[in-house]
Amino acid sequence: MTAAASTSRNRRGRPGYDRQQVLEAAVRIFNQQGYDATSVSDIAASLGFAKSALYHHFESKASILELALDDALSGLESALDSAVRDNGSASAQLRQFVHSAVGVLTARLPQVMLLLRVRGNSEVELAALQRRRAFDQRVAMIVAAAQEEGMLRKEIDASVATRLIFGMINSLVEWYRPDGPVDAAELADDVLLATFDGLQTHP
Amino acid sequence: MTAAASTSRNRRGRPGYDRQQVLEAAVRIFNQQGYDATSVSDIAASLGFAKSALYHHFESKASILELALDDALSGLESALDSAVRDNGSASAQLRQFVHSAVGVLTARLPQVMLLLRVRGNSEVELAALQRRRAFDQRVAMIVAAAQEEGMLRKEIDASVATRLIFGMINSLVEWYRPDGPVDAAELADDVLLATFDGLQTHP
Repeated sequence: MTAAASTSRNRRGRPGYDRQQVLEAAVRIFNQQGYDATSVSDIAASLGFAKSALYHHFESKASILELALDDALSGLESALDSAVRDNGSASAQLRQFVHSAVGVLTARLPQVMLLLRVRGNSEVELAALQRRRAFDQRVAMIVAAAQEEGMLRKEIDASVATRLIFGMINSLVEWYRPDGPVDAAELADDVLLATFDGLQTHP
Repeated sequence: MTAAASTSRNRRGRPGYDRQQVLEAAVRIFNQQGYDATSVSDIAASLGFAKSALYHHFESKASILELALDDALSGLESALDSAVRDNGSASAQLRQFVHSAVGVLTARLPQVMLLLRVRGNSEVELAALQRRRAFDQRVAMIVAAAQEEGMLRKEIDASVATRLIFGMINSLVEWYRPDGPVDAAELADDVLLATFDGLQTHP
């Protein structure tokens, strides 16, 4: 963007660019210091904006949180919808979902991190937790169906198996970084292999 | 304990009982509202103690944190030491460690939860993080050795495999509860099976 164009867009409030910028900055600060401990002023200050400029783009701190959580949840839900649509067997659906869920997490890391840290202290958070629970239940039903198909071992209770799968996937937010040494596509393959085939060699 | 004995011990400050009680209450509050946001007064108030009574047992908030983190770390380190001592092959060492690490986590849930939430905002936290990193590296070396033995698949980088194993184990703090429906011993078997053999049936 040229300086002139930038100035011109500044005058009009640069709606598209600023909105995304505000969202990213807010999610970063929410993740750093916690949603409750973050004020709209903190977000504005981190961008060098006035608080009023921020309110030009978002109604409230809660509406920023809502959008960020929706981004994470929609990504995961779409991945599951596609996996169900693209595959006949529950086992194949689950394989595709696990693989693409890692893709969602690595591509939308800050939003997923935020989602995983939500504790339900507000209406927006409670709604996100409820949506996440409904989503987890859909996955648990696919795990149970894959066990019925004989493709997943039945020794592990379906709800525990679901939690273990999500446990491994979600733990990536603790260490995976887009600019780090681990390739996102390889990581999706690794998680799929680890959860389905296990780390042990099978001679 | 009889009422008389309790009163008599109260007069002497009930050192053993109170110390443990303070530790448990502190860890619970640290986990609920965060270490930084917790004051010594919060801990004392939750027990109906005066602040001075609490200082009778612990020098500072940091010394309580230090003890709790040491409890989690010592448990994990002992589990690893035993696994190394009891087994010849790296693969067998790793199997025993994964199984007993789940046992440590379920038996010392609040302390391990606290350890996993430590962010390094104080000297005590930094020391715990450093000790945890050294520990993780020991496990990663065993994973690498098990790959060399041909017992663990080499497609997954040893450090990634280590993170995935810990990811699954550590995620238990998010949902496992001692009074919940899942049996701790069964859970250890489940995690071992999931990480080594995978969730898929191997016909």
